[in-house]
Amino acid sequence: MEYVHGYSDQERARLADQAATLTDLLHADTRYPAGSRVLEAGCGVGAQTVILAANSPDADVTCVDISAASVTAARERATRAGLANVRFLRADLFDAPFPRASFDHVFVCFVLEHLADPVAALAALRGLLRPGGSITVIEGDHGSAYFHPDSEAARRAIGCLVDLQARAGGDALIGRRLYPLLVQAGYRDVAVSPRVVYADASRPHLVDGFTRRTFTAMVEGVGEQAVGEALLDAPTWAAGVRALHRTTEPDGTFSYTFFKATATSPPA
Amino acid sequence: MEYVHGYSDQERARLADQAATLTDLLHADTRYPAGSRVLEAGCGVGAQTVILAANSPDADVTCVDISAASVTAARERATRAGLANVRFLRADLFDAPFPRASFDHVFVCFVLEHLADPVAALAALRGLLRPGGSITVIEGDHGSAYFHPDSEAARRAIGCLVDLQARAGGDALIGRRLYPLLVQAGYRDVAVSPRVVYADASRPHLVDGFTRRTFTAMVEGVGEQAVGEALLDAPTWAAGVRALHRTTEPDGTFSYTFFKATATSPPA
Repeated sequence: MEYVHGYSDQERARLADQAATLTDLLHADTRYPAGSRVLEAGCGVGAQTVILAANSPDADVTCVDISAASVTAARERATRAGLANVRFLRADLFDAPFPRASFDHVFVCFVLEHLADPVAALAALRGLLRPGGSITVIEGDHGSAYFHPDSEAARRAIGCLVDLQARAGGDALIGRRLYPLLVQAGYRDVAVSPRVVYADASRPHLVDGFTRRTFTAMVEGVGEQAVGEALLDAPTWAAGVRALHRTTEPDGTFSYTFFKATATSPPA
Repeated sequence: MEYVHGYSDQERARLADQAATLTDLLHADTRYPAGSRVLEAGCGVGAQTVILAANSPDADVTCVDISAASVTAARERATRAGLANVRFLRADLFDAPFPRASFDHVFVCFVLEHLADPVAALAALRGLLRPGGSITVIEGDHGSAYFHPDSEAARRAIGCLVDLQARAGGDALIGRRLYPLLVQAGYRDVAVSPRVVYADASRPHLVDGFTRRTFTAMVEGVGEQAVGEALLDAPTWAAGVRALHRTTEPDGTFSYTFFKATATSPPA
Protein backbone atom coordinates (compact mmCIF):
# COMPACT_ATOMS: atom_id res chain seq x y z
CA MET A 1 0.00 0.00 0.00
CA GLU A 2 2.95 2.33 0.47
CA TYR A 3 3.10 2.67 -3.31
CA VAL A 4 -0.48 3.77 -3.78
CA HIS A 5 -0.58 6.85 -1.60
CA GLY A 6 1.28 10.09 -1.32
CA TYR A 7 3.24 10.13 -4.54
CA SER A 8 5.93 12.77 -4.45
CA ASP A 9 6.87 14.76 -7.53
CA GLN A 10 9.93 12.56 -7.88
CA GLU A 11 7.65 9.55 -7.71
CA ARG A 12 5.37 11.01 -10.34
CA ALA A 13 8.36 11.64 -12.61
CA ARG A 14 9.50 8.06 -12.16
CA LEU A 15 6.06 6.71 -12.99
CA ALA A 16 5.90 8.88 -16.08
CA ASP A 17 9.34 7.57 -17.06
CA GLN A 18 8.18 4.00 -16.66
CA ALA A 19 5.01 4.62 -18.64
CA ALA A 20 7.10 6.24 -21.37
CA THR A 21 9.33 3.17 -21.60
CA LEU A 22 6.36 0.84 -22.09
CA THR A 23 4.71 3.34 -24.41
CA ASP A 24 7.77 3.41 -26.63
CA LEU A 25 8.07 -0.37 -26.57
CA LEU A 26 4.46 -0.95 -27.62
CA HIS A 27 3.35 2.15 -29.51
CA ALA A 28 6.31 4.01 -31.01
CA ASP A 29 6.05 2.27 -34.38
CA THR A 30 2.33 3.00 -34.87
CA ARG A 31 1.91 6.34 -36.69
CA TYR A 32 -1.03 7.00 -38.98
CA PRO A 33 -0.91 9.50 -41.86
CA ALA A 34 -2.71 12.83 -41.85
CA GLY A 35 -6.37 12.49 -42.72
CA SER A 36 -6.47 8.72 -42.31
CA ARG A 37 -9.55 7.29 -40.65
CA VAL A 38 -8.58 5.21 -37.60
CA LEU A 39 -10.86 3.05 -35.44
CA GLU A 40 -9.77 2.12 -31.93
CA ALA A 41 -11.90 -0.90 -31.05
CA GLY A 42 -12.34 -1.42 -27.31
CA CYS A 43 -10.82 1.80 -26.02
CA GLY A 44 -11.74 1.14 -22.37
CA VAL A 45 -11.01 4.21 -20.26
CA GLY A 46 -8.67 5.61 -22.91
CA ALA A 47 -5.28 4.59 -21.53
CA GLN A 48 -4.02 3.65 -25.00
CA THR A 49 -6.19 6.21 -26.81
CA VAL A 50 -4.24 9.20 -25.56
CA ILE A 51 -0.98 7.64 -26.76
CA LEU A 52 -2.44 6.58 -30.10
CA ALA A 53 -3.99 9.97 -30.82
CA ALA A 54 -0.90 11.90 -29.69
CA ASN A 55 1.35 9.79 -31.94
CA SER A 56 -0.87 10.46 -34.97
CA PRO A 57 -2.04 14.02 -34.34
CA ASP A 58 -3.35 14.55 -37.88
CA ALA A 59 -5.26 11.28 -38.15
CA ASP A 60 -9.00 11.17 -37.50
CA VAL A 61 -9.49 8.72 -34.60
CA THR A 62 -12.82 7.12 -33.68
CA CYS A 63 -12.92 5.12 -30.43
CA VAL A 64 -15.61 2.67 -29.43
CA ASP A 65 -16.21 0.60 -26.33
CA ILE A 66 -19.16 -1.49 -25.19
CA SER A 67 -19.18 0.19 -21.75
CA ALA A 68 -20.86 3.60 -21.59
CA ALA A 69 -19.00 4.38 -18.35
CA SER A 70 -15.67 3.59 -19.99
CA VAL A 71 -16.50 5.75 -22.99
CA THR A 72 -17.30 8.66 -20.68
CA ALA A 73 -14.03 8.18 -18.80
CA ALA A 74 -12.06 7.91 -22.04
CA ARG A 75 -13.64 11.06 -23.43
CA GLU A 76 -12.75 12.99 -20.27
CA ARG A 77 -9.20 11.68 -20.39
CA ALA A 78 -8.80 12.74 -24.02
CA THR A 79 -10.19 16.18 -23.21
CA ARG A 80 -7.75 16.56 -20.31
CA ALA A 81 -4.94 15.56 -22.69
CA GLY A 82 -6.03 18.31 -25.07
CA LEU A 83 -6.63 15.93 -27.96
CA ALA A 84 -8.77 17.38 -30.74
CA ASN A 85 -8.56 14.50 -33.24
CA VAL A 86 -10.56 11.89 -31.30
CA ARG A 87 -14.26 11.10 -31.03
CA PHE A 88 -15.92 8.49 -28.81
CA LEU A 89 -18.93 6.26 -29.26
CA ARG A 90 -20.52 3.50 -27.22
CA ALA A 91 -20.79 0.50 -29.53
CA ASP A 92 -20.53 -3.28 -29.71
CA LEU A 93 -17.58 -4.45 -31.83
CA PHE A 94 -19.82 -7.08 -33.37
CA ASP A 95 -22.49 -4.60 -34.38
CA ALA A 96 -20.85 -1.22 -34.80
CA PRO A 97 -22.88 1.56 -36.46
CA PHE A 98 -20.45 2.17 -39.32
CA PRO A 99 -20.86 1.37 -43.02
CA ARG A 100 -18.50 -1.24 -44.48
CA ALA A 101 -15.03 0.06 -45.34
CA SER A 102 -15.37 3.13 -43.10
CA PHE A 103 -11.78 3.03 -41.85
CA ASP A 104 -8.25 2.98 -43.22
CA HIS A 105 -6.79 1.51 -40.02
CA VAL A 106 -8.03 -0.40 -37.00
CA PHE A 107 -6.21 -0.51 -33.65
CA VAL A 108 -7.01 -3.10 -30.94
CA CYS A 109 -5.03 -3.18 -27.69
CA PHE A 110 -5.64 -5.48 -24.68
CA VAL A 111 -9.13 -6.37 -25.92
CA LEU A 112 -9.01 -9.81 -27.58
CA GLU A 113 -7.82 -11.45 -24.35
CA HIS A 114 -11.30 -10.82 -22.91
CA LEU A 115 -13.35 -12.21 -25.81
CA ALA A 116 -14.78 -15.69 -26.18
CA ASP A 117 -14.50 -15.52 -29.97
CA PRO A 118 -11.60 -13.28 -30.97
CA VAL A 119 -11.65 -14.53 -34.57
CA ALA A 120 -15.25 -13.36 -34.98
CA ALA A 121 -14.31 -9.98 -33.53
CA LEU A 122 -11.36 -9.63 -35.90
CA ALA A 123 -13.54 -10.66 -38.85
CA ALA A 124 -16.19 -8.08 -37.88
CA LEU A 125 -13.49 -5.40 -37.73
CA ARG A 126 -12.19 -6.50 -41.14
CA GLY A 127 -15.61 -5.60 -42.55
CA LEU A 128 -15.13 -2.04 -41.29
CA LEU A 129 -11.72 -1.69 -42.98
CA ARG A 130 -11.35 -0.54 -46.55
CA PRO A 131 -9.71 -3.12 -48.81
CA GLY A 132 -5.98 -3.01 -48.18
CA GLY A 133 -6.48 -1.23 -44.85
CA SER A 134 -4.40 -2.19 -41.83
CA ILE A 135 -5.10 -3.65 -38.43
CA THR A 136 -2.74 -3.43 -35.44
CA VAL A 137 -3.27 -5.71 -32.44
CA ILE A 138 -1.39 -5.66 -29.13
CA GLU A 139 -1.86 -8.32 -26.45
CA GLY A 140 0.11 -9.71 -23.52
CA ASP A 141 0.75 -13.38 -22.70
CA HIS A 142 0.88 -14.36 -19.03
CA GLY A 143 2.69 -17.59 -19.91
CA SER A 144 5.63 -15.46 -21.05
CA ALA A 145 6.38 -14.35 -17.48
CA TYR A 146 9.48 -15.86 -15.90
CA PHE A 147 11.82 -14.56 -13.26
CA HIS A 148 14.72 -15.08 -10.91
CA PRO A 149 14.63 -16.46 -8.31
CA ASP A 150 12.26 -18.96 -9.90
CA SER A 151 9.31 -20.06 -7.75
CA GLU A 152 6.78 -22.82 -8.22
CA ALA A 153 4.31 -20.92 -6.00
CA ALA A 154 4.64 -17.78 -8.11
CA ARG A 155 4.12 -19.79 -11.29
CA ARG A 156 0.99 -21.32 -9.78
CA ALA A 157 -0.31 -17.90 -8.70
CA ILE A 158 0.16 -16.60 -12.25
CA GLY A 159 -1.60 -19.75 -13.46
CA CYS A 160 -4.62 -18.63 -11.43
CA LEU A 161 -4.84 -15.46 -13.52
CA VAL A 162 -4.86 -17.62 -16.62
CA ASP A 163 -7.54 -19.91 -15.13
CA LEU A 164 -9.72 -16.99 -14.04
CA GLN A 165 -9.45 -15.35 -17.46
CA ALA A 166 -10.44 -18.69 -19.04
CA ARG A 167 -13.43 -19.04 -16.69
CA ALA A 168 -14.51 -15.55 -17.77
CA GLY A 169 -14.38 -16.72 -21.39
CA GLY A 170 -11.07 -15.09 -22.29
CA ASP A 171 -7.47 -16.18 -22.85
CA ALA A 172 -4.55 -14.68 -20.92
CA LEU A 173 -2.16 -16.60 -23.18
CA ILE A 174 -3.47 -14.94 -26.33
CA GLY A 175 -0.27 -13.12 -27.32
CA ARG A 176 1.25 -16.25 -28.81
CA ARG A 177 -1.97 -16.82 -30.82
CA LEU A 178 -2.15 -13.49 -32.70
CA TYR A 179 -0.72 -14.97 -35.88
CA PRO A 180 -3.25 -17.79 -36.33
CA LEU A 181 -6.16 -15.63 -35.11
CA LEU A 182 -5.50 -12.95 -37.75
CA VAL A 183 -4.99 -15.54 -40.49
CA GLN A 184 -8.22 -17.31 -39.52
CA ALA A 185 -10.08 -13.98 -39.55
CA GLY A 186 -9.13 -13.48 -43.19
CA TYR A 187 -6.28 -10.97 -42.94
CA ARG A 188 -3.20 -10.90 -45.19
CA ASP A 189 0.43 -9.98 -44.58
CA VAL A 190 0.24 -10.94 -40.91
CA ALA A 191 3.45 -9.93 -39.12
CA VAL A 192 3.91 -10.53 -35.39
CA SER A 193 6.58 -8.87 -33.30
CA PRO A 194 7.29 -9.89 -29.69
CA ARG A 195 8.18 -7.03 -27.32
CA VAL A 196 9.98 -8.09 -24.15
CA VAL A 197 9.82 -6.12 -20.92
CA TYR A 198 12.91 -7.22 -19.01
CA ALA A 199 13.60 -5.74 -15.58
CA ASP A 200 16.68 -6.02 -13.37
CA ALA A 201 18.31 -3.68 -10.85
CA SER A 202 19.96 -1.70 -13.65
CA ARG A 203 16.43 -0.65 -14.74
CA PRO A 204 14.88 0.44 -11.43
CA HIS A 205 11.94 2.26 -13.06
CA LEU A 206 10.89 -1.02 -14.74
CA VAL A 207 11.41 -3.08 -11.57
CA ASP A 208 9.18 -0.70 -9.71
CA GLY A 209 6.77 0.32 -12.43
CA PHE A 210 6.34 -2.98 -14.22
CA THR A 211 7.40 -5.93 -12.03
CA ARG A 212 6.03 -4.54 -8.77
CA ARG A 213 3.23 -2.14 -9.61
CA THR A 214 1.90 -3.64 -12.81
CA PHE A 215 2.44 -7.39 -12.92
CA THR A 216 2.71 -8.32 -9.25
CA ALA A 217 -0.09 -5.90 -8.37
CA MET A 218 -2.28 -7.58 -10.99
CA VAL A 219 -1.58 -11.01 -9.47
CA GLU A 220 -2.23 -9.70 -5.96
CA GLY A 221 -5.47 -8.17 -7.17
CA VAL A 222 -7.11 -11.51 -7.93
CA GLY A 223 -5.93 -13.26 -4.77
CA GLU A 224 -9.24 -13.21 -2.97
CA GLN A 225 -11.07 -14.60 -5.98
CA ALA A 226 -8.43 -17.25 -6.74
CA VAL A 227 -8.39 -18.55 -3.16
CA GLY A 228 -12.18 -18.16 -2.89
CA GLU A 229 -12.71 -20.29 -5.98
CA ALA A 230 -10.20 -22.81 -4.59
CA LEU A 231 -7.83 -22.45 -7.52
CA LEU A 232 -5.00 -22.30 -4.98
CA ASP A 233 -4.72 -22.57 -1.20
CA ALA A 234 -4.10 -19.35 0.70
CA PRO A 235 -0.55 -20.17 1.92
CA THR A 236 0.65 -21.08 -1.58
CA TRP A 237 -0.95 -17.93 -2.91
CA ALA A 238 0.80 -15.80 -0.31
CA ALA A 239 4.10 -17.55 -1.02
CA GLY A 240 3.65 -16.90 -4.72
CA VAL A 241 3.07 -13.19 -4.19
CA ARG A 242 6.06 -13.00 -1.84
CA ALA A 243 8.18 -14.75 -4.48
CA LEU A 244 7.14 -12.19 -7.10
CA HIS A 245 8.11 -9.36 -4.76
CA ARG A 246 11.40 -11.20 -4.14
CA THR A 247 12.24 -10.77 -7.85
CA THR A 248 12.33 -6.98 -7.32
CA GLU A 249 15.33 -7.25 -4.99
CA PRO A 250 18.77 -6.23 -6.33
CA ASP A 251 19.66 -9.73 -7.56
CA GLY A 252 16.24 -10.47 -9.07
CA THR A 253 15.09 -10.33 -12.67
CA PHE A 254 11.69 -10.43 -14.39
CA SER A 255 10.65 -10.95 -18.02
CA TYR A 256 7.29 -10.52 -19.73
CA THR A 257 6.47 -10.43 -23.43
CA PHE A 258 3.81 -8.46 -25.26
CA PHE A 259 2.94 -9.32 -28.84
CA LYS A 260 2.22 -6.71 -31.48
CA ALA A 261 0.76 -7.80 -34.80
CA THR A 262 -0.02 -5.94 -37.99
CA ALA A 263 -1.99 -7.24 -40.96
CA THR A 264 -4.00 -5.96 -43.90
CA SER A 265 -7.51 -6.61 -45.14
CA PRO A 266 -7.60 -8.29 -48.58
CA PRO A 267 -7.67 -6.04 -51.66
CA ALA A 268 -11.09 -5.53 -53.27
CA MET B 1 14.81 -38.25 -40.09
CA GLU B 2 13.84 -36.83 -43.46
CA TYR B 3 15.54 -33.61 -42.40
CA VAL B 4 18.87 -35.15 -41.56
CA HIS B 5 19.76 -36.81 -44.85
CA GLY B 6 20.15 -35.73 -48.40
CA TYR B 7 20.07 -31.96 -48.13
CA SER B 8 19.48 -30.34 -51.47
CA ASP B 9 21.19 -27.10 -52.46
CA GLN B 10 17.92 -25.31 -51.75
CA GLU B 11 17.86 -26.95 -48.34
CA ARG B 12 21.43 -25.86 -47.67
CA ALA B 13 20.56 -22.30 -48.63
CA ARG B 14 17.61 -22.34 -46.28
CA LEU B 15 19.73 -23.65 -43.43
CA ALA B 16 22.32 -20.98 -44.10
CA ASP B 17 19.54 -18.39 -44.09
CA GLN B 18 18.26 -19.66 -40.74
CA ALA B 19 21.75 -19.68 -39.24
CA ALA B 20 22.26 -16.14 -40.49
CA THR B 21 19.07 -14.98 -38.78
CA LEU B 22 20.16 -16.36 -35.41
CA THR B 23 23.70 -15.12 -36.00
CA ASP B 24 22.43 -11.61 -36.56
CA LEU B 25 20.16 -11.80 -33.53
CA LEU B 26 22.91 -12.93 -31.16
CA HIS B 27 26.20 -11.69 -32.63
CA ALA B 28 25.66 -8.69 -34.91
CA ASP B 29 26.34 -6.15 -32.17
CA THR B 30 29.64 -7.69 -31.04
CA ARG B 31 32.50 -6.11 -33.03
CA TYR B 32 35.97 -5.76 -31.55
CA PRO B 33 38.44 -3.07 -32.68
CA ALA B 34 41.55 -3.79 -34.74
CA GLY B 35 44.39 -5.06 -32.62
CA SER B 36 42.27 -5.77 -29.55
CA ARG B 37 43.06 -8.94 -27.64
CA VAL B 38 39.94 -11.13 -27.37
CA LEU B 39 39.53 -14.34 -25.37
CA GLU B 40 36.75 -16.77 -26.27
CA ALA B 41 36.31 -18.90 -23.16
CA GLY B 42 34.81 -22.32 -23.86
CA CYS B 43 34.88 -22.31 -27.65
CA GLY B 44 33.67 -25.91 -27.98
CA VAL B 45 33.89 -27.05 -31.60
CA GLY B 46 34.07 -23.46 -32.82
CA ALA B 47 30.46 -22.85 -33.87
CA GLN B 48 30.48 -19.34 -32.39
CA THR B 49 34.21 -18.80 -32.99
CA VAL B 50 33.88 -18.54 -36.76
CA ILE B 51 31.15 -15.90 -36.39
CA LEU B 52 33.05 -13.98 -33.72
CA ALA B 53 36.31 -13.94 -35.67
CA ALA B 54 34.62 -13.07 -38.96
CA ASN B 55 32.78 -10.13 -37.35
CA SER B 56 36.05 -8.75 -35.91
CA PRO B 57 38.56 -9.62 -38.64
CA ASP B 58 41.28 -7.33 -37.28
CA ALA B 59 41.01 -8.40 -33.64
CA ASP B 60 43.41 -10.97 -32.24
CA VAL B 61 41.23 -13.84 -30.99
CA THR B 62 42.40 -16.56 -28.57
CA CYS B 63 40.06 -19.50 -28.00
CA VAL B 64 40.27 -21.99 -25.16
CA ASP B 65 38.29 -25.07 -24.28
CA ILE B 66 38.82 -27.78 -21.71
CA SER B 67 38.32 -30.55 -24.29
CA ALA B 68 41.31 -31.31 -26.50
CA ALA B 69 39.01 -32.96 -29.07
CA SER B 70 36.84 -29.85 -29.23
CA VAL B 71 39.87 -27.60 -29.63
CA THR B 72 41.07 -29.74 -32.54
CA ALA B 73 37.63 -29.60 -34.18
CA ALA B 74 37.40 -25.83 -33.63
CA ARG B 75 40.87 -25.27 -35.13
CA GLU B 76 39.91 -27.28 -38.23
CA ARG B 77 36.66 -25.36 -38.57
CA ALA B 78 38.47 -22.02 -38.35
CA THR B 79 41.00 -23.18 -40.95
CA ARG B 80 38.20 -24.25 -43.30
CA ALA B 81 36.60 -20.83 -42.80
CA GLY B 82 39.91 -19.21 -43.82
CA LEU B 83 40.26 -17.30 -40.55
CA ALA B 84 43.77 -16.01 -39.89
CA ASN B 85 43.11 -14.04 -36.70
CA VAL B 86 42.33 -16.95 -34.34
CA ARG B 87 44.49 -19.24 -32.23
CA PHE B 88 43.37 -22.20 -30.13
CA LEU B 89 44.58 -23.64 -26.84
CA ARG B 90 43.36 -26.43 -24.59
CA ALA B 91 42.91 -24.89 -21.14
CA ASP B 92 40.76 -24.89 -18.03
CA LEU B 93 38.87 -21.61 -17.54
CA PHE B 94 39.72 -21.75 -13.85
CA ASP B 95 43.45 -22.15 -14.46
CA ALA B 96 44.22 -20.64 -17.84
CA PRO B 97 47.92 -20.12 -18.74
CA PHE B 98 47.69 -16.36 -19.26
CA PRO B 99 49.10 -13.53 -17.14
CA ARG B 100 46.58 -11.26 -15.42
CA ALA B 101 45.10 -8.54 -17.66
CA SER B 102 46.06 -10.36 -20.88
CA PHE B 103 42.89 -9.47 -22.72
CA ASP B 104 40.84 -6.42 -23.68
CA HIS B 105 37.65 -8.43 -24.18
CA VAL B 106 36.25 -11.78 -23.11
CA PHE B 107 33.47 -13.61 -24.96
CA VAL B 108 31.53 -16.52 -23.41
CA CYS B 109 28.67 -18.18 -25.30
CA PHE B 110 26.62 -21.21 -24.19
CA VAL B 111 29.20 -22.14 -21.53
CA LEU B 112 27.96 -20.95 -18.13
CA GLU B 113 24.85 -23.15 -18.38
CA HIS B 114 27.14 -26.19 -17.95
CA LEU B 115 29.09 -24.97 -14.93
CA ALA B 116 28.39 -25.72 -11.27
CA ASP B 117 29.91 -22.38 -10.19
CA PRO B 118 29.38 -19.80 -12.94
CA VAL B 119 30.26 -16.91 -10.59
CA ALA B 120 33.70 -18.42 -9.94
CA ALA B 121 34.21 -18.86 -13.68
CA LEU B 122 33.25 -15.24 -14.38
CA ALA B 123 35.53 -14.04 -11.57
CA ALA B 124 38.44 -16.08 -12.96
CA LEU B 125 37.85 -14.53 -16.39
CA ARG B 126 37.74 -11.06 -14.82
CA GLY B 127 41.30 -11.67 -13.66
CA LEU B 128 42.37 -12.15 -17.27
CA LEU B 129 40.76 -8.87 -18.39
CA ARG B 130 42.61 -5.57 -18.29
CA PRO B 131 40.98 -3.01 -15.99
CA GLY B 132 38.05 -1.52 -17.88
CA GLY B 133 37.97 -4.42 -20.33
CA SER B 134 34.66 -5.91 -21.44
CA ILE B 135 32.97 -9.26 -21.13
CA THR B 136 30.11 -10.47 -23.34
CA VAL B 137 28.01 -13.45 -22.25
CA ILE B 138 25.28 -15.21 -24.25
CA GLU B 139 23.06 -17.92 -22.77
CA GLY B 140 19.65 -19.44 -23.45
CA ASP B 141 16.86 -20.06 -20.94
CA HIS B 142 14.69 -23.13 -21.46
CA GLY B 143 12.01 -21.68 -19.19
CA SER B 144 11.49 -18.96 -21.80
CA ALA B 145 10.04 -21.46 -24.30
CA TYR B 146 6.30 -21.23 -24.89
CA PHE B 147 4.21 -22.08 -27.89
CA HIS B 148 0.82 -22.52 -29.51
CA PRO B 149 -0.95 -24.86 -29.21
CA ASP B 150 0.10 -25.01 -25.58
CA SER B 151 0.76 -28.50 -24.16
CA GLU B 152 1.30 -29.70 -20.63
CA ALA B 153 3.20 -32.73 -21.96
CA ALA B 154 5.54 -30.52 -23.99
CA ARG B 155 6.16 -28.32 -20.96
CA ARG B 156 6.99 -31.39 -18.91
CA ALA B 157 9.34 -32.72 -21.60
CA ILE B 158 11.17 -29.38 -21.64
CA GLY B 159 11.26 -29.57 -17.85
CA CYS B 160 13.21 -32.83 -18.23
CA LEU B 161 15.97 -30.94 -20.06
CA VAL B 162 16.12 -28.52 -17.15
CA ASP B 163 16.21 -31.41 -14.64
CA LEU B 164 18.93 -33.27 -16.54
CA GLN B 165 21.04 -30.12 -16.82
CA ALA B 166 20.62 -29.59 -13.07
CA ARG B 167 21.64 -33.21 -12.34
CA ALA B 168 24.76 -32.61 -14.44
CA GLY B 169 25.56 -29.59 -12.24
CA GLY B 170 24.40 -26.93 -14.68
CA ASP B 171 21.41 -24.61 -15.08
CA ALA B 172 19.28 -24.54 -18.24
CA LEU B 173 17.44 -21.48 -16.84
CA ILE B 174 20.62 -19.42 -16.58
CA GLY B 175 19.68 -16.72 -19.10
CA ARG B 176 17.50 -14.89 -16.58
CA ARG B 177 20.39 -15.00 -14.05
CA LEU B 178 23.09 -13.26 -16.11
CA TYR B 179 22.60 -9.94 -14.36
CA PRO B 180 23.12 -11.17 -10.77
CA LEU B 181 25.89 -13.58 -11.81
CA LEU B 182 27.94 -10.81 -13.40
CA VAL B 183 27.34 -8.44 -10.48
CA GLN B 184 28.34 -11.13 -7.98
CA ALA B 185 31.50 -11.85 -10.00
CA GLY B 186 32.61 -8.23 -9.54
CA TYR B 187 31.77 -6.71 -12.91
CA ARG B 188 30.51 -3.15 -13.47
CA ASP B 189 28.08 -1.64 -15.99
CA VAL B 190 26.17 -4.88 -16.36
CA ALA B 191 23.62 -4.56 -19.19
CA VAL B 192 21.40 -7.48 -20.18
CA SER B 193 19.47 -7.65 -23.43
CA PRO B 194 16.89 -10.38 -24.13
CA ARG B 195 16.80 -11.65 -27.73
CA VAL B 196 13.58 -13.41 -28.71
CA VAL B 197 13.41 -16.05 -31.42
CA TYR B 198 9.76 -16.07 -32.47
CA ALA B 199 8.62 -18.45 -35.21
CA ASP B 200 5.29 -18.66 -37.04
CA ALA B 201 4.32 -19.71 -40.56
CA SER B 202 5.35 -16.30 -41.92
CA ARG B 203 8.94 -17.21 -40.94
CA PRO B 204 9.29 -20.73 -42.37
CA HIS B 205 13.09 -20.80 -42.10
CA LEU B 206 12.78 -20.24 -38.33
CA VAL B 207 9.97 -22.77 -37.92
CA ASP B 208 12.10 -25.36 -39.64
CA GLY B 209 15.57 -24.29 -38.54
CA PHE B 210 14.83 -23.30 -34.96
CA THR B 211 11.56 -24.79 -33.69
CA ARG B 212 11.94 -28.16 -35.44
CA ARG B 213 15.65 -28.76 -35.99
CA THR B 214 17.14 -26.91 -33.06
CA PHE B 215 14.77 -26.84 -30.09
CA THR B 216 12.52 -29.85 -30.71
CA ALA B 217 15.51 -31.91 -31.88
CA MET B 218 17.31 -31.03 -28.64
CA VAL B 219 14.30 -32.20 -26.58
CA GLU B 220 14.01 -35.40 -28.64
CA GLY B 221 17.73 -36.00 -28.15
CA VAL B 222 17.44 -36.52 -24.39
CA GLY B 223 14.29 -38.67 -24.53
CA GLU B 224 15.99 -41.96 -23.81
CA GLN B 225 17.84 -40.54 -20.82
CA ALA B 226 14.78 -38.70 -19.45
CA VAL B 227 12.57 -41.79 -19.62
CA GLY B 228 15.44 -44.03 -18.46
CA GLU B 229 15.96 -41.88 -15.38
CA ALA B 230 12.19 -41.91 -14.80
CA LEU B 231 11.87 -38.13 -15.07
CA LEU B 232 8.83 -38.72 -17.26
CA ASP B 233 6.91 -41.77 -18.47
CA ALA B 234 7.39 -42.76 -22.11
CA PRO B 235 3.86 -41.93 -23.34
CA THR B 236 3.94 -38.42 -21.85
CA TRP B 237 7.37 -37.90 -23.35
CA ALA B 238 6.15 -38.97 -26.78
CA ALA B 239 3.08 -36.75 -26.44
CA GLY B 240 5.33 -33.82 -25.51
CA VAL B 241 7.53 -34.28 -28.56
CA ARG B 242 4.47 -34.63 -30.80
CA ALA B 243 3.08 -31.42 -29.29
CA LEU B 244 6.31 -29.57 -30.07
CA HIS B 245 6.15 -30.78 -33.67
CA ARG B 246 2.51 -29.67 -33.73
CA THR B 247 3.67 -26.07 -33.12
CA THR B 248 5.42 -26.15 -36.52
CA GLU B 249 2.12 -26.51 -38.38
CA PRO B 250 0.71 -23.45 -40.20
CA ASP B 251 -1.32 -22.23 -37.21
CA GLY B 252 1.43 -22.88 -34.65
CA THR B 253 3.84 -20.44 -33.00
CA PHE B 254 6.99 -20.86 -30.90
CA SER B 255 8.98 -18.42 -28.75
CA TYR B 256 12.39 -18.78 -27.11
CA THR B 257 14.58 -16.10 -25.53
CA PHE B 258 18.34 -15.86 -25.43
CA PHE B 259 20.02 -13.40 -23.08
CA LYS B 260 23.06 -11.36 -24.05
CA ALA B 261 24.93 -9.45 -21.37
CA THR B 262 27.83 -7.06 -21.48
CA ALA B 263 29.82 -5.77 -18.52
CA THR B 264 33.21 -4.27 -17.71
CA SER B 265 35.93 -5.17 -15.27
CA PRO B 266 36.55 -2.49 -12.63
CA PRO B 267 39.10 0.23 -13.40
CA ALA B 268 42.54 -0.24 -11.85
